[in-house]
Formats: sequence, C-alpha cells, structure tokens
Amino acid sequence: MTMRFAVLGAGRIGRVHAKAIASTDGAVLVAVADPIAAAAESLAAAHACAIRTIDEIEAAGDVDAVVICTPTDTHADLIERFARAGKAIFCEKPVDLDVTRVKNCLKVVQETGATLMVGFNRRFDPHFAALKGAIDAGKIGKVEMVTITSRDPSPPPYEYISRSGGIFRDMTIHDFDVARWLLGEEVETVMASASVLVDAEIGKRGDYDSVNIILRTASGRQAIITNTRRAVYGYDQRIEVLGSDGLVAAENLREANIEIANASGYHKPPLMDFFMTRYTAAYAAEIAAFIKAVGEKSVPPTTGDDGLKALALAEAALKSVAEGRAVSLSEVTG
Amino acid sequence: MTMRFAVLGAGRIGRVHAKAIASTDGAVLVAVADPIAAAAESLAAAHACAIRTIDEIEAAGDVDAVVICTPTDTHADLIERFARAGKAIFCEKPVDLDVTRVKNCLKVVQETGATLMVGFNRRFDPHFAALKGAIDAGKIGKVEMVTITSRDPSPPPYEYISRSGGIFRDMTIHDFDVARWLLGEEVETVMASASVLVDAEIGKRGDYDSVNIILRTASGRQAIITNTRRAVYGYDQRIEVLGSDGLVAAENLREANIEIANASGYHKPPLMDFFMTRYTAAYAAEIAAFIKAVGEKSVPPTTGDDGLKALALAEAALKSVAEGRAVSLSEVTG
Amino acid sequence: MTMRFAVLGAGRIGRVHAKAIASTDGAVLVAVADPIAAAAESLAAAHACAIRTIDEIEAAGDVDAVVICTPTDTHADLIERFARAGKAIFCEKPVDLDVTRVKNCLKVVQETGATLMVGFNRRFDPHFAALKGAIDAGKIGKVEMVTITSRDPSPPPYEYISRSGGIFRDMTIHDFDVARWLLGEEVETVMASASVLVDAEIGKRGDYDSVNIILRTASGRQAIITNTRRAVYGYDQRIEVLGSDGLVAAENLREANIEIANASGYHKPPLMDFFMTRYTAAYAAEIAAFIKAVGEKSVPPTTGDDGLKALALAEAALKSVAEGRAVSLSEVTG
Amino acid sequence: MTMRFAVLGAGRIGRVHAKAIASTDGAVLVAVADPIAAAAESLAAAHACAIRTIDEIEAAGDVDAVVICTPTDTHADLIERFARAGKAIFCEKPVDLDVTRVKNCLKVVQETGATLMVGFNRRFDPHFAALKGAIDAGKIGKVEMVTITSRDPSPPPYEYISRSGGIFRDMTIHDFDVARWLLGEEVETVMASASVLVDAEIGKRGDYDSVNIILRTASGRQAIITNTRRAVYGYDQRIEVLGSDGLVAAENLREANIEIANASGYHKPPLMDFFMTRYTAAYAAEIAAFIKAVGEKSVPPTTGDDGLKALALAEAALKSVAEGRAVSLSEVTG
Repeated sequence: MTMRFAVLGAGRIGRVHAKAIASTDGAVLVAVADPIAAAAESLAAAHACAIRTIDEIEAAGDVDAVVICTPTDTHADLIERFARAGKAIFCEKPVDLDVTRVKNCLKVVQETGATLMVGFNRRFDPHFAALKGAIDAGKIGKVEMVTITSRDPSPPPYEYISRSGGIFRDMTIHDFDVARWLLGEEVETVMASASVLVDAEIGKRGDYDSVNIILRTASGRQAIITNTRRAVYGYDQRIEVLGSDGLVAAENLREANIEIANASGYHKPPLMDFFMTRYTAAYAAEIAAFIKAVGEKSVPPTTGDDGLKALALAEAALKSVAEGRAVSLSEVTG
Repeated sequence: MTMRFAVLGAGRIGRVHAKAIASTDGAVLVAVADPIAAAAESLAAAHACAIRTIDEIEAAGDVDAVVICTPTDTHADLIERFARAGKAIFCEKPVDLDVTRVKNCLKVVQETGATLMVGFNRRFDPHFAALKGAIDAGKIGKVEMVTITSRDPSPPPYEYISRSGGIFRDMTIHDFDVARWLLGEEVETVMASASVLVDAEIGKRGDYDSVNIILRTASGRQAIITNTRRAVYGYDQRIEVLGSDGLVAAENLREANIEIANASGYHKPPLMDFFMTRYTAAYAAEIAAFIKAVGEKSVPPTTGDDGLKALALAEAALKSVAEGRAVSLSEVTG
Repeated sequence: MTMRFAVLGAGRIGRVHAKAIASTDGAVLVAVADPIAAAAESLAAAHACAIRTIDEIEAAGDVDAVVICTPTDTHADLIERFARAGKAIFCEKPVDLDVTRVKNCLKVVQETGATLMVGFNRRFDPHFAALKGAIDAGKIGKVEMVTITSRDPSPPPYEYISRSGGIFRDMTIHDFDVARWLLGEEVETVMASASVLVDAEIGKRGDYDSVNIILRTASGRQAIITNTRRAVYGYDQRIEVLGSDGLVAAENLREANIEIANASGYHKPPLMDFFMTRYTAAYAAEIAAFIKAVGEKSVPPTTGDDGLKALALAEAALKSVAEGRAVSLSEVTG
Repeated sequence: MTMRFAVLGAGRIGRVHAKAIASTDGAVLVAVADPIAAAAESLAAAHACAIRTIDEIEAAGDVDAVVICTPTDTHADLIERFARAGKAIFCEKPVDLDVTRVKNCLKVVQETGATLMVGFNRRFDPHFAALKGAIDAGKIGKVEMVTITSRDPSPPPYEYISRSGGIFRDMTIHDFDVARWLLGEEVETVMASASVLVDAEIGKRGDYDSVNIILRTASGRQAIITNTRRAVYGYDQRIEVLGSDGLVAAENLREANIEIANASGYHKPPLMDFFMTRYTAAYAAEIAAFIKAVGEKSVPPTTGDDGLKALALAEAALKSVAEGRAVSLSEVTG
C-alpha cells in the first residue's frame, strides 16, 4: 500500500523531504502547502502534486501522513492538529523551543494515538548507522566515551540566530540526540563552556558560536561534543566511540575521492559543503524509516520523547554556561 | 522536451539503465523488450512501462531512443536497425567482438546520421571525472604515466568466459578506454603479459585471469593496466596519473566510511562489492550525458569510434601475448 | 664544548635519557646514580660511565648538568641541592605534587640563577612541533579550539596509582602543558568530569581512569582534553587545533606503515605501544634543547614555571570534579 | 666480540654507512680511505677513526670487514683483493656493470670462502620488511602480482647518467631485487618499455627517464615496476603485493605526520625527499644484518648472486626495449 504524503512548508528542508518522498518506493507526494505562493508552486511543479492550504490537507481523505517543515513556532500546534486529524506526522526538530510546550504537545499525541516521528536525520546517515551497528554487534565492547565533532562551515544569518533558540537548541541538539543514541544510557549531568570567537555580532544577539559540552551518565560514561559555527574547510561531521574493547570512528565525506600530489605536498578537496549534500542519504533513509514505522504500526526510531530529551539537554547546557557548574538533567525536566 | 526511451534486454545491466532513466529529469521509460517474458514483466512492473517486441519498438512513434542491453552478438545488428529507424542509440560495450564487424556497423551509423553512444561508464564516475578535471585544469602539468589498477572481486561464470571474448575484450576494454581518455594521445604500441593464476579452468577455456599491459603513445607517454579476476577484498578500481608537475589519484570506495580499532589494529570495511554498487552514480551520469548529447545534437562523449579503438587495443594485447612482443596498433586496425 | 652529564635514577626513564645523551653530539654521560646497585651497574655498563652517589655527583668537578629521574617526592630537594651546587638541571615532571612546595623550590632556583628545564617531552615530538610550527606560521589563522586525545594502552600498576598524585597530576599534566603551549593564552577556568570505567580498583584507590576536561582562556579560546587509562588499540596520541582559517591535526604513529586487505576488509597494525617507542625522537630532541639552552645561557623551552602551571591545572581539575563546577585557576594558585 | 670496520670511499653513501656502523652495537669504525684527502679527513673526524690507504687496510690486522663505497668500476677489483685478504666484505650495488665481470668476481669470492654482502638496502627497510613478513606469515595466501612504484624526486646530474649504466642498471636494479625477493620465484621473462619524457638531454646521453617493466616467473606470477626520474612531490616508494587471499601494501613516508585543512581542502606535507632520509633505518638494519651474518658465519641476506641476478634483469630489460619483445633471462645470463 502506498503512503500518501503532504509536505507543509516548501522551504529548503521541505524540498529535501519532498525529493526523498518522491524517490522512495511506497510513498507518493499528494500535496504541498506554503503561505508563500511561489515556493508552493515551485515545489508542486517539481513533483507534479497539488497545492493546498493546511486546512484542506487536514480535511483531506487522500492524505495519510504530513511532513512538517514550517517555522519552529508552528510545529507544536500543527502536530496537535494533525494528530487529532488522524494523520501520521513527521516533524522536523524541534517540536518547540519550550520544554513545557513540548510536553503538552506530546500529551496530545499520546492521547490521540498518533504516530509522531521527530527528524533527527543523523541517526539515518549510513556511515553513522554502520558505526552504531558496530557498537551493537559488540565490536568495541562496553561503550565508555563518545566524541562528537560537529562544525558548520559558516554561521547562519543573524536573523536566523535571533529566532533559533541559540546554538545549543538549534545546532548542538543534533549532537545531543546522537550522543544519547550512542551512549546507551540516559545523561544525568551536563557541563558546558561557550564562547564568541567567530563573530562578535553573534554575541550581541545573546548567542555563542564556539561551544564544548561534556555529558555524563549514571554509570560514568561520558560524551564530549565540540561545536563551532565556522570551519573554513567544510562541514565537519565526525564521531568516535571508545569502548572497553576498541574504538569505532566515522570519518568526514567529500564529493570527489581524489588526491593531488605536487611540490607543495598532498592535497584532497574540501569536505562536502553542508547538510543538504552531506546528509542526502540520511534524509531519504529517515523518510523510509517513517514509512516503515507507520506501515508496521511500530514506534518510529526517533520519537517526540527523543525530541524532548535533546531539548532538555540544550536547556541544561545553557544553564551550565550561565552558572558555571554541572547541571543535572532533573533540574530542567522538572 | 522529455526523451522517451525503450530498453532492449531486461537483464542486470538493463535494469541499471532503466533505473537511471527513471531517476533522470527529462527522460521517461516507455517500453522494455526481452525474449524472457518474466524478465520483461518484472522490469516493466518496476517502472510502470509497456512490454513490447523489438519490432514494435523499431516501429513506435513514441520512442526517441533505445538502450541496447542485449547479448553482445546482437549489438551490431540492433545498432544498424535502430540507426535506420531514426532512433538515438545507447549501446552497452562492445559493439561487437570482431573489429571488421564493428567497422561495418559504424559505417551504417555514419550513413544514417544516427547518434550512437557506447557505454563506457567509468568516464562518468564522479571521482574519475574529478581526476580528469584536475588534469584538464593543468594541476599535474603534462601527462606522462597512467596507472590503472582494476580487479574484479571474483571470476565470472565459466559460461560467461566462454563467450565474452576473453579478459582483454570483456574486462580490460574498460581500462583501455580509460587509458585512452587520460593519456590524451592515441596509443601506438601494446605489450601484454597474461597468466592463469586464479583458476586453471579459465585457462582450459582459452582465457587468462591475471594480466598486465603497457600502452605507449607516439610521444612516449605510457599507461600500465593491471587486471585480475579475483581480489578477495572487493572491487578494486584505482587510477593514478603522473604528470610533469604532480600526481593525481582516485582511491577506492566503500559503503561505510568507518574504522574500527582494536587490539589487533585498525580495520576498515571491504570495498564496494562490484560494479552495480560502485558505479551507480556513473550509470546515471552516463545516461544523462546521452540525453544531453541527443538533445543538443552534439557528439556523445563516448562514441562508436571509442568502442572500436578500445577493441583494437584488446586485439593488440592478445597478439602481444601470443607472440611475446610489442604490437603496433596499426597491425590490428589494418 | 662538551656538556658532561650525570643521570640520577637508573629506572625506565633514566635509561631513556641516558641513551638520548649518548646519541647527542656535544653531550657525554659521566656518571649515574641509583640506590639499587644492579640498576646503576646495568646503566653504567651500557654507556661505559661511572657509578657515583648523589653526594659525589653534587661535589664533582667533572659534571656540568644532572638529569633527575628519581621518584617524584625527591625532585624538589634534588633540584634545590643541584641548583646550589651550580649544576644545570633537567628534571622529569613534576617538580612536586604540591603547588606550594613547587613554588618554594622554584624560588631557590631563581635565587641561585640555575638553569632548570622540566621534562615535557611532547613539545619536542617532531610531529607536534610541526603542528605548532604550522600554527606559528599562520596556516590556520587565530587559534580557537584545541582538541587533545591522549589515551594510554593500559593502566599502570595499582602501586603507581597510589603514589602518582592521580590521573590529572600524572597523565593529564602532559596534556595540560600541550594545551597551554598551543592555546597561546593562559587558561583561566577549568571544568572537568571524571569516572571510573576501566577498573573499579582504581576508584578504590581514590583515582579516576576516564576523564574529560575543558580549559578556557580569557578571550574564550577553549581546549578539550580526553584521557583514558585503557585504549586496547595502543597509545593514542592525537592533537587537533581549529583556527579562524583552518585546522591542523597530528595523527597517530605506527611501527610498520603497511596495510593488509582481505575478505574481511582493510587492516593496519596497532599503534606504537607506549611512550618509550612513541616519543623516542622527542626525548632526544628534548635533551638537545636542554644542551642548547645551557650552552647559550638562554631560558629552556620548558621551565619550572611551566611545571607549576601544569600542576595548577591538575589541581583545578581535581577541584572541579569534586565540586561539580568551573574552577578559576586563581583559586588554586593563590 | 666487536667487528672492526674500514669504510672505503668517503662520499655520500660512505658517510651513511659510517654512521650506521657507529650507531650499531658490536661494530666499530677503525679506518676510512679516500683518495680525496678532505673527504677522508671529514669522515675520520666525525667518527674519531684513522685515515689509511686501501693498501694499509688490506694489510691491517685490526680490520675485520670492509664497506666498499668507491666508484662502481672499482668494486669488482676491491672485492677480489679483500676476499683474498680474508676480510668480510659489504659492497654497495652493483658489483660491476658487466655480467661477465661480475661472474668472474663472484668466482674469486667463492674460492676464497669470503663473506660478501651486496647492498640492497630496501629489503631492510622496516616497512618493506613488515610487508615481506606478512607475506611469509601467509596473510595474503599465494603471491600472484607484485606492483612496485619507484620514482626519484629529480634526475641525477648528466655526468652521473653517463657513467651509471643507465636507468635500468642504476635505479631499477633496486626494484628488480625487491621484485625477486617478493615474487618468491625466479623471473623467466622481461618486457620493458622506456621513454624520454622528463628531459631530452637524458635521451641524448642514451638513457631513458620513464620506464615500465613486466617480469614474469615460470608459474605465471608477474611483477610490474614503474620508474621515473622525476616526481615533483617527493621520493615515491611504494609496494603492493596481491595474493590469492588478499593484498599487502607499504605506503610512502613523510617527515611530519600532520594535515592542514583550510578553505582549499586538506593538505599533507610532501614525502621524504630522497633515499638518505627515507632509508636511514634501512641502512642501519642492513649493516646490522651484515655483522650478524659474519658473526654467525651464515650467508648474508643479499649476496653476490642477488647482485648478479638483478643486473641480469637490467640487461634483459635493455634488450627488451631495444628489440620490442619479451626477453628470456636465459638469453642474457648465458
């Protein structure tokens, strides 16, 4: 049976998901909604689907699932509406920037019995999935230390920074999710250090651009996350996990696997430039996992609760920076 | 304008091309033909296209181009038929195993003015294309030496070996084409050495499984090709080009870019297993290049003449092995 | 002019330094002292030098410099004695485990005008030196983030742990020194997280075996240090420095630079097993730097003050773990 | 028992061997001889040894072994003299450029029962030795294909080319020896291709600068050697061996194991610049192997016969180029 999709929001990430749906067996894109007519038209044309309003999609009998790619502050409301409308929901992270709002939203999802998957695309990257597979297969023994290096090539626009909730909620949140996934235990305490080194304007907007975080579980497992908004050599996305019997690491990717040697040395091309190219396969696998979970009526691999927990880690990191101390997760989850 | 395709032959490579067409903007798969009904049905079902006979496709008004993936001994006849029918033709290598037959076929193509592209997929691999781009951009100066390492993971079935024309015509032919492409000059002489090291049965069928070839151009540029039918570690596909100002190399690829370190050392997964996975992107780019050439009415990047020249190099290599001497290309092209 | 050396302490590290002296132009080993006769005899025989008591060496007219490789709790006393005796002093880290004792000792050194170099061998490793050279040459712009991965292959004996001062003072101290060297600014605050994951016996002795530390300078530069007492794949010693214009990294080393590919993948040998082999070149370069500094009457590249500052970072790290907060260096240096 | 050495010839390679002797336990450098007084004095001063004439060394009672580093055309005579004088002999390759002269010289060595080791340093490189060790340990099964890439950073002086015997006898000879060592079977036929691509002046002197050679054993094993006189990126020295169960490869080495990433990509330093630095460890291990063989009265690992066989391969390669055909080794060894 084919799953019929509507994509809400025809921006950059909406287009990525629309393309992923189009190229996935068993999925078809029925409609797209966007208040900006040109964006909706362009995306609808690319995939030969209808343009509809959100109200129309909510009422539609030919839509089984929605992919929410609208601005963050609309996510929680839309999730509640479509949960009540009986649609399966895939929502880009985060559910909301406020922990309490997320909790209330997830309560509605639970009451309606709707399927909600929150988009943490990195778990679906084939390389990171292979790394996780090696851990699960016992190749490195018991997990002890997770090291995540995650650096953007360049800062986002100031306007984005002002409304993103800050680096921990917007950027590190992916790494918090990956750390939770790989640690194999829930995090108990968070220590974070944050600076403005890249651009003083970012600081003026109340955000940081260079941060390091240490997460710690009850049994003492630790994860270190290092983030910066500017790595001039490309989109640096690496993971290392140390276990009692060894180490597993996932390396960066580049478009062209070539090397040039000349009188000044050996040279490889820069890394893939950003998430749109680096995680193409991950976005496709993520949608496929959603379709599979809905089809099987099973729990999706990344749930609303995962979204809540990653957001709580961001809250704790912010508090740790503000107060210069290790913050227990229980302090922010109430 | 959309180009309407028929695929002739629904075997392994036919399916690869059908998928490439389906995922290419500006191309649509209209029909498939195969004498084995089950094969045709399966492929037609996968892409929701018609099943037709070759005669029907030849006569069809809704087919602009054919992709010939039938057995080698039918290629030349089909090329001639579809050239006369006014279709654009993409034909899997080789046009024929016999040099004279190829020449006659290409004469027909020329007379009809048909567009013929011969499938040398490796030129379209993004990594090899980046290597060629570096050469063309002058990154290594004047080309001097080309080194091609090309090893299959395991030998083909005996039955295939008996009718393939032998390792030079079936396997090395890709490397001959790549060498010609990278040397930037036509080859004048060929020296080849061939052994049976992998499986004595291959020798009993009159073929070799382990060969090395040195090609040489008029100005003294050289290419070395090393082939074997068995590399237990995977499908080994590497190129190095030395120039007056440096070296450019394209490395192997693997599915998962991870490394595991344990008490016995550092370990990476095996290479991609064979051409179906290793050259997925190349097959798609190849079809896209064909569509572009037909659309622009330009000469395709890999022509019938390229097919003829690579075949002649295979002839020369066979002669070199038989006679234990350097063979001039002019001896085999007449 | 040749510098005449005595080595105090004929244990493992004493032997390393004796060998470095013997292979350095402009240096000669005159005498060795060790309360364990067999150790002194073995080392004296290997280098055809005299066995003397520490008193004899202190009074000797034919000894210009001493290398102190005795147990840690004798370092400060010996430094003071030999400073007063007018000898140049190379002392293995640390000067003492107690910050106040170190300060008093350095006061004596200053009063006597003696040359004191403290052995932070890693700065002299040719690879790390090349990394520092790249930073100093402006290759990565302004330094922002330093990442040090430093993992021992296996824990030391329990007896060593009991008297070493703990992981921060014994193991991380090297990384603290490297971080200071690379950050290019003094550290202001320290956040540390410590667990017992490798061996519960280590915890019973009041120490940790798995730690992560974030250092931060006044301008917001940060360094992350990750340590464990057990990396089964070898002695993992890596450094990465991110700057405004790029990244420079120093990779691990192995004895044999070979790779084996087979049906289970690609395999490299384990890393060099421990500091004796990994830092052979560093130990030789370190002694050469000492000889050069004494000869030129210049300040050695790693001074008593460097020893004090690295020790203070260890103190701060311990306090951070105990109190679960960021600790200012000023709290521990008084 | 200490072995007492004299070094004949105080040029570049003589200095390398003198240093290797000085740093080897169980060996002492007693004397050096060179017709150029300044060269002899400089080397004698560096190692505090005597300057003597060759006659004096021949007659000396305090010299057990000689290292012949004089010009090639004196090698055979000196070997004969010192064999008759009862000294153990280490001679730099080649024994002579003429096969017959080598044969006669080796006859004298055999009659006197002298120990003669010919300097093929590469077998003693720790990385190549580890590669050979992996083969001998059965890690890749039965050897099938050997690939040797050996490129000098820049051509030698014209004057050297005129008297070196040409690229095959001077440069490829090392690769011929390595190929024989790794193939595990004697070579039967040689095919070679040679061009002048680097410098036309080299061609005017009757030599080539860019060559490829295919060697073949009786059972069909093959080795490919690729040489050039100019690789602008450094001294390129790589070996790959394919076997029935896998591949083993030895990679290039560089002084500093660092990598810099910036906006133009990832960059590693050039390779070690030439044999003096690349093979330092090999030269020391080679002399140690000679001392061991003399001490144990065993056959040295690289004998006069190895020198003869490598020279014969060079003869065969020259003949193959001249006649454009595969040449049997029996044609040149008579």
